[in-house]
Parts: sequence; structure tokens; C-alpha cells
Amino acid sequence: MKTLLPVAMSDIHVHLEPRHVEELFGRGHALTKWRYLTIPGQFACRETVEVVGPSGRVPGAVVVGPARRQTQVEISLGNGLVLGIDPPLRESGRLQGTPGATLVGSAGSVVLESGVIAAARHIHMHPRDAREYGVADGQRVRVRVPGARGLVFEQVVVRVSEEYALEMHVDVEEGRAAGVVDFQLVELLG
Amino acid sequence: MKTLLPVAMSDIHVHLEPRHVEELFGRGHALTKWRYLTIPGQFACRETVEVVGPSGRVPGAVVVGPARRQTQVEISLGNGLVLGIDPPLRESGRLQGTPGATLVGSAGSVVLESGVIAAARHIHMHPRDAREYGVADGQRVRVRVPGARGLVFEQVVVRVSEEYALEMHVDVEEGRAAGVVDFQLVELLG
Repeated sequence: MKTLLPVAMSDIHVHLEPRHVEELFGRGHALTKWRYLTIPGQFACRETVEVVGPSGRVPGAVVVGPARRQTQVEISLGNGLVLGIDPPLRESGRLQGTPGATLVGSAGSVVLESGVIAAARHIHMHPRDAREYGVADGQRVRVRVPGARGLVFEQVVVRVSEEYALEMHVDVEEGRAAGVVDFQLVELLG
Repeated sequence: MKTLLPVAMSDIHVHLEPRHVEELFGRGHALTKWRYLTIPGQFACRETVEVVGPSGRVPGAVVVGPARRQTQVEISLGNGLVLGIDPPLRESGRLQGTPGATLVGSAGSVVLESGVIAAARHIHMHPRDAREYGVADGQRVRVRVPGARGLVFEQVVVRVSEEYALEMHVDVEEGRAAGVVDFQLVELLG
């Protein structure tokens, strides 16, 4: 059974629904690809937004394309302290009952009623990977990061899809806490 | 054998040697106690400094009193990215070969040749605690934080002194990564 897999850190970013792309960047605007992510078909855009909350603002949140069905803002707990928003820990796409925020783009702004989360740490796997690592979609596993700041993450959600490539994702605070270098190998402990 | 102990997060802060207190806050200035810390005799001061590095500034770094033999600046990796300083992971007081920074106070500034570190996570213990928890000064142990962001910190340094009270210290990124609430109980795994 395989155990080693790469890890990457996600800084504050947003996924946008089509009408929000237009409201933030102008009528008929199409997102501009900056670089592909490890998730096939997903890309970081040149467009960024400022996220605004009750107590502060965080500029430079990268837009991740392509547009999605529902706008989602992924922040760290540290971002939350600046914004005055306490983000619930959620899996991507599970937005019911989440707090909102205001997004400011180059051509306008959008007031979200909900959509702000702290993303639960997770591993993306293709079904072939899931077989090779002996885990199943939705399973929670432990993952060890070696090194001077070594630690074992618990409560890591396995997410399996034909559309995923093998990679663990943590936020920047989780990554720094563990001394993670993007794309280093970590160990799935099961 | 006991296993449970409290944990607290340390945000960016500085310890100052006496001449730096005067250079930053004025001739004859005495530090103003704001609140006592769990470490007996140590206190957070009302005084703060701005830490300045090659690429940016972080305001509001709390001064921790009383004055010490050698000035030390404890920052997170995130602070380091703002400042343009890559802080080495060190135990408090081990400053040889560390990078410097500029500190700006209300009455002046100080250019440090060295003294900037990321503090290695650690547990302060009185010798009586060390006996009750079955560990020794300098030992490295694992500590489990329970919860939705639960994890096991490895490489936690045990520091035993007659001057210490029982408490684990992590930086803000480590704390947020684990969903720590200050003074919650964590489990020493040995």
C-alpha cells in the first residue's frame, strides 16, 4: 500500500459564480488564467478581489477559475480575525449557514449573504489513488509531516473523484505550523 | 502519571535588554505592566514596537517584561513573509547566528544585528510538574490537541525550571492550525 503523497498550502482565495465575475470585473468579463493548479482544469487567475468584513479588509485574494455554481470564499482563521468573521470549518461546497462578506473587484462589488469558510484539510484523490492508498471517499485519516516542525494532522478528509489528482491541501496556517514546503511528501498513516 | 496540561498561543512579541528600553521609549523609561503572564514574574507591557524588515513592517509587537540580558524578537513564519526575514526555529535565548531587524518605539529605534527567531514549541514545567508528567528538561515529546482541527505536535521541547509554571506555548499559526483556544487542555503523549 502506498503512503507518501504531496502537500500544498492554500492561501485566501475565492471561487466565483458567473454573475459575480461580471459584477466584480465588468460585463462580459472572462477570467484570465495565471497558472494551472494540481486539480485538473482548475487555475489561479490574474484577477484578485479584496475581501471586506465587519472589522477589516484583506486584499489580494486570488480568484480560482473556472466559474462555479456558487461563490465560495476560503479564508484562514488569521484572515478571520482581521475581517471580524469567524469562519466555520467546512468541506468545499458545504455553504449552508456560513457567514457572508463583501467582495470588491476592479469594476464593482458583491455583498455575499453566505459562502465564507475555513476549508477542512483534505486529500484529493483519483479513484485509482484511493485503491493504491487503501482509503475511501469521506474517510478521515491522519497524515504525518516530517521535520523540525513535524506533526500529525488528524481529521484529514479524503475526497475521491475522477476529476482529482493526488494532493493534500492545508491552509497557510496549517502549512506554516508544520513547516510545510509546497509539494513536499507527507505520510498517510490511515 | 499526569498527561493533561494547558496550552496558550504567543503572538509576535519582543524581550528587550535595558538599554533598548531606553532607546525605544526614552531615557529612564520603565516598562508598564499590562497583565501578568503564566510565567511567574513575566508580564505583557502596554508598550509595543513596530518590527521592520527588508520587505515590510509589522506594528503592535507587545513588549514582554521585565527587561532581559539580550533582546529577542519572536515572530511567526507569516510575520517573516511580511518582513522579508526567514526566522530560524530556536529555543528562547539561543540567538547565535540569527537574523536581525529594526525595532521602532515611541521615542526612537534600534537596529538589531541578530535576535529574530521563530520560537520552538515548548512546555514550561516546574521540577514538580516534570516528576508528575514523567519527563525531563530538554526532552522532546508529542502533544495531542483534540477537536475538529485536532493534531499531534511532535518535536515539543520540555523546559524545566523552578521559575516556570505548567503551560505549553505555541505560536499563533500553530495554535490556529490546531483550533486551539487559549488555556484549553492538551494531552502529553510522551
